[in-house]
Amino acid sequence: MDSKKQPLIGVILGSKSDLPQAVKIAETLDSLDVPFEVTVASAHRTPEDVTTYARKARSRGLKVLIGVAGLAAALPGSLAAETTLPVIGLPVAGGALGGMDALLAIAQMPPGIPVAAVGLNSGQNAALLAVRILALSDDRLQEVLWDFQAQASDKVRASRKELENLPSAPDEAFR
Amino acid sequence: MDSKKQPLIGVILGSKSDLPQAVKIAETLDSLDVPFEVTVASAHRTPEDVTTYARKARSRGLKVLIGVAGLAAALPGSLAAETTLPVIGLPVAGGALGGMDALLAIAQMPPGIPVAAVGLNSGQNAALLAVRILALSDDRLQEVLWDFQAQASDKVRASRKELENLPSAPDEAFR
Amino acid sequence: MDSKKQPLIGVILGSKSDLPQAVKIAETLDSLDVPFEVTVASAHRTPEDVTTYARKARSRGLKVLIGVAGLAAALPGSLAAETTLPVIGLPVAGGALGGMDALLAIAQMPPGIPVAAVGLNSGQNAALLAVRILALSDDRLQEVLWDFQAQASDKVRASRKELENLPSAPDEAFR
Amino acid sequence: MDSKKQPLIGVILGSKSDLPQAVKIAETLDSLDVPFEVTVASAHRTPEDVTTYARKARSRGLKVLIGVAGLAAALPGSLAAETTLPVIGLPVAGGALGGMDALLAIAQMPPGIPVAAVGLNSGQNAALLAVRILALSDDRLQEVLWDFQAQASDKVRASRKELENLPSAPDEAFR
Amino acid sequence: MDSKKQPLIGVILGSKSDLPQAVKIAETLDSLDVPFEVTVASAHRTPEDVTTYARKARSRGLKVLIGVAGLAAALPGSLAAETTLPVIGLPVAGGALGGMDALLAIAQMPPGIPVAAVGLNSGQNAALLAVRILALSDDRLQEVLWDFQAQASDKVRASRKELENLPSAPDEAFR
Amino acid sequence: MDSKKQPLIGVILGSKSDLPQAVKIAETLDSLDVPFEVTVASAHRTPEDVTTYARKARSRGLKVLIGVAGLAAALPGSLAAETTLPVIGLPVAGGALGGMDALLAIAQMPPGIPVAAVGLNSGQNAALLAVRILALSDDRLQEVLWDFQAQASDKVRASRKELENLPSAPDEAFR
Amino acid sequence: MDSKKQPLIGVILGSKSDLPQAVKIAETLDSLDVPFEVTVASAHRTPEDVTTYARKARSRGLKVLIGVAGLAAALPGSLAAETTLPVIGLPVAGGALGGMDALLAIAQMPPGIPVAAVGLNSGQNAALLAVRILALSDDRLQEVLWDFQAQASDKVRASRKELENLPSAPDEAFR
Amino acid sequence: MDSKKQPLIGVILGSKSDLPQAVKIAETLDSLDVPFEVTVASAHRTPEDVTTYARKARSRGLKVLIGVAGLAAALPGSLAAETTLPVIGLPVAGGALGGMDALLAIAQMPPGIPVAAVGLNSGQNAALLAVRILALSDDRLQEVLWDFQAQASDKVRASRKELENLPSAPDEAFR
Repeated sequence: MDSKKQPLIGVILGSKSDLPQAVKIAETLDSLDVPFEVTVASAHRTPEDVTTYARKARSRGLKVLIGVAGLAAALPGSLAAETTLPVIGLPVAGGALGGMDALLAIAQMPPGIPVAAVGLNSGQNAALLAVRILALSDDRLQEVLWDFQAQASDKVRASRKELENLPSAPDEAFR
Repeated sequence: MDSKKQPLIGVILGSKSDLPQAVKIAETLDSLDVPFEVTVASAHRTPEDVTTYARKARSRGLKVLIGVAGLAAALPGSLAAETTLPVIGLPVAGGALGGMDALLAIAQMPPGIPVAAVGLNSGQNAALLAVRILALSDDRLQEVLWDFQAQASDKVRASRKELENLPSAPDEAFR
Repeated sequence: MDSKKQPLIGVILGSKSDLPQAVKIAETLDSLDVPFEVTVASAHRTPEDVTTYARKARSRGLKVLIGVAGLAAALPGSLAAETTLPVIGLPVAGGALGGMDALLAIAQMPPGIPVAAVGLNSGQNAALLAVRILALSDDRLQEVLWDFQAQASDKVRASRKELENLPSAPDEAFR
Repeated sequence: MDSKKQPLIGVILGSKSDLPQAVKIAETLDSLDVPFEVTVASAHRTPEDVTTYARKARSRGLKVLIGVAGLAAALPGSLAAETTLPVIGLPVAGGALGGMDALLAIAQMPPGIPVAAVGLNSGQNAALLAVRILALSDDRLQEVLWDFQAQASDKVRASRKELENLPSAPDEAFR
Repeated sequence: MDSKKQPLIGVILGSKSDLPQAVKIAETLDSLDVPFEVTVASAHRTPEDVTTYARKARSRGLKVLIGVAGLAAALPGSLAAETTLPVIGLPVAGGALGGMDALLAIAQMPPGIPVAAVGLNSGQNAALLAVRILALSDDRLQEVLWDFQAQASDKVRASRKELENLPSAPDEAFR
Repeated sequence: MDSKKQPLIGVILGSKSDLPQAVKIAETLDSLDVPFEVTVASAHRTPEDVTTYARKARSRGLKVLIGVAGLAAALPGSLAAETTLPVIGLPVAGGALGGMDALLAIAQMPPGIPVAAVGLNSGQNAALLAVRILALSDDRLQEVLWDFQAQASDKVRASRKELENLPSAPDEAFR
Repeated sequence: MDSKKQPLIGVILGSKSDLPQAVKIAETLDSLDVPFEVTVASAHRTPEDVTTYARKARSRGLKVLIGVAGLAAALPGSLAAETTLPVIGLPVAGGALGGMDALLAIAQMPPGIPVAAVGLNSGQNAALLAVRILALSDDRLQEVLWDFQAQASDKVRASRKELENLPSAPDEAFR
Repeated sequence: MDSKKQPLIGVILGSKSDLPQAVKIAETLDSLDVPFEVTVASAHRTPEDVTTYARKARSRGLKVLIGVAGLAAALPGSLAAETTLPVIGLPVAGGALGGMDALLAIAQMPPGIPVAAVGLNSGQNAALLAVRILALSDDRLQEVLWDFQAQASDKVRASRKELENLPSAPDEAFR
């Protein structure tokens, strides 16, 4: 990706330990050629930074924010409280409870401040959801998304050839 | 709301029993003067209708879909599989498990097909998330959202006066 | 197994990553000499294929479908919506929540479209349930199933001899 | 229903308190004109009766058993252990844990003895699953099931007219 | 209570709907003659107010904060991020999940910013924990707490006389 | 019951609010003519009383203790730590989490101090488990228990006659 | 242990894979010199054996049964249904759900047939609970249990010396 | 740390196996130069020691107790029942249920005896919460805590430089 392009998506990690999720997001966005930026800001350890980042996000040209956090994952909600941009929350499955804490903390927001929760560790889906939003006003991205979904379909279909020695369904089953 | 305006948000209920959620969504969208439409289509009882609705949504001028469903809430995912529009999933807390089934079914989507989950029975947040997405290309909605958030803040502040006989914090605590 | 025989059971994996479950199903069906076929089709990435497969299943001679899926496991329900054949749902324990998401997504179907859920990763039971259904009109399979259950009993009994150095119950305890 | 017909489905309640589920099953089976019988037998309080019932079920002409139970719902598994007929387990949501105990006790069967779990309190789906199995060798039931599904679809579509004052999607959205 | 005394405990409700919890806290603190104040401030709807309140709390003479919130209960953590006073989090059992979401959101704080979680709807315990903290430097409160615990013991013992017609254990069982 | 008989079972309630469970226990024990005593003692509000009661229980002639508690139900474990009598823990389903907290607190004891957990609100089973233990050295109780189980069986069988208008299974199904 | 002694405790494994739990039970019982026997019998694969074993247990001289099982752990309940001996259920944490299924299946028994549940994988506690029951009529076991608990206390105390370089509490803290 | 200083915080482990949590607590307290002591005492295996320790804690100069325990974690509650010092409960994630049992057992205390629960395995937060309490009457600790929080903030900010090759947000995003 040409990193000089104006980033449209801001990815905020609650902790550097969430970096693997950012890598998954970055891979997806790079493959779709959508410019983004990544940073670290904690709702609890650097709350002012979260506030400032969220407040300036729109004027800086960002369109969608993705907050990545585990445990009592307050980050996406803190971002959403300080911007009117759509905020996606990506819960990280760390800690003893398998991420159920993070999923509930992101999904169960109080009325008035919406967060768009995706699944645990679903970096790819967080990225794709952001791109669907961007694509509303970007015809190239519409096509890119269709291509992406078509490739995903093709990949599923191709995998039918790789079922080892199992008796496979004939092609006409799908026609 | 002027119901003749082009609807921008499509609200799909998995069952007519989810109507109370649609009413909450409608109240919010009406108050923000955002045109929408509501319908009923079940991923399991009318799968073709879901497919057709999702496929035609973009060409019909819709920008965001909100799928409302309980139990093994497949509807939002079925919609997302057939469109590149952003799809919001609103899990309904019905049945014996308090809605945990619906929340997981909507949040834990497989990689490739994103759904934006909001909280259980959070019709208002589903509506507001949709409006945040629309507001990316609609300056009036930006203002409307700020007003909405400001009013929500004011309402919280006003409620401080209504704490019955409890000793309340002085105004300077917030200045 | 003679792979040229008409398959009676269609095993559909939501993703190639579910292959280990198919192998368990295949081992069981092979041991009982019941012809089957395996394929991959995703409710979200290839929804049309799922629809087509389900709709043609009966005319193609299949009697029972087994949908194998993890996370928000919509596959078995999508199959069941497009056929009147009995559909067995096999939830796969993957992801951060230990498969609870998949189990609920398969078990908690809305009224009108039944799915027969078996336990997490229970490929053998999915296969045996399918064979019980086939055996209703196949006396050989009745016998095969009794043999299978008798062998399972024998295996339990034989294992009493292998309790290392622990003092074991006498044979008359079971007579 | 003509109650003199040979019952094909045996519905076993673990306790008389599960009667409301039997009524739901009965309504569905009656509407499809499928003969059945209902009884009460507890895996823990009358284990011999459960064993005898299951062992004689096949020779008595039954094709499918539906075990209905709450709490540590052992009944469906106990039936399945004594017959090769397909056994459907219907978990009942009673007690303090909302039925999660019953659902897991029915779904998480050990390898070798399959039970087909349906959702909590899903009497209708238990009945429909049984009928799908019977329909494999009964063309009338195939048609009956298609009619049932078609009626369910029609009911969903009809409900679109009853969305009170909400702006509804136009008919062409589904064409 | 003499409401002119300097409040030592600040009770912050995330929403006016949490007022019943504040009443329970107030009853306990009043009975122990500990001055406090109550207010409403939402981590999501009035984040600045939460920040200002937390930052000024110490200089305003408060010693302990009690944050009361339901759902994705971010309030206690937001307070704790902006003060070094001890912050108690009181999760409220509202919404579809019985408060499990609020309990996890309050208990599972990330490293570095501690919150003291008490049980769901445990207003009395939130108050008593605050008083235990204050009592470290207030001998009257030590006595008050001992009295409170002694009265609680007496109440338990007195209740032995009220076991209706059940045969009760003799007094010597406790001597 | 002749209340002058030496009580053999000590029922300890953690709070007077658990009285309904004691009534269920008492009804069962009275019907089997087993002498018992009931008291209230809290592991947290009267820990000394719990200790004294447990330590004196054996010399006072008690054979089995039943600890009844909700929430973080420490009572059964506290009793078990101070006696070598068998201790039964009866978790009470109160509070916001449906009793899951009490069940886990009673069942998940650390190694070395066993507690016999019964189900949530299962006063009858707590009583019957105690009687099974007593019956090891009391032939009358053996008979009483067989009678009780026989009556329970009869009650199940009798309920077959009360299935309203549902077609019931014939008697020979159980012969 | 002298294996010729009359076994007093019958340990029944639902599957040979539960052997590690039997080993833990055996170690505890051996260390207390309590004779026992171990066997394998499955509630689902050898239900008749479970029935026969339970029915003959008392006349064979057994006093307590310990049923060990995972998943939908029906074994302890099946044993309890066929004997009036006290039955202890030991849930095994296997499978995808961490043993929650087994714990609920054992603890949440229906009224009338009690099972004494111990914690997940708590072989030692299952053994100690059985010995507490036996000790009601065996003074040696009373002493043995006191010794065991005293040794457990001593072990806890001794471990205070092994806290590496951490500053430890002085002895007078416990006097 | 100068170990001769009067310890202000008493850390009690329910078992020596909880030592890793004590090490985390000790590292935090040492880094803040707060004197503490560590010991082992089990609510179930050495209940008298727990009682004595708690009762003497205040007169021995301790200000805050931290009880560390897993499973049915009764230790913090047992301490709190015998002192009026604030007691922090640190649940340990061991055993099959991922620590949910310990978290609930510590958080869901009955009314009257408060425990301050921190997150699973959150030794650092347990330590910091204790220091926040001490800091109420110790200005040095106030500063130490601010420094600690400032360092935590700096660490978050510094981590922004270490996002490998990902495009990072510019500094002005936070100004």
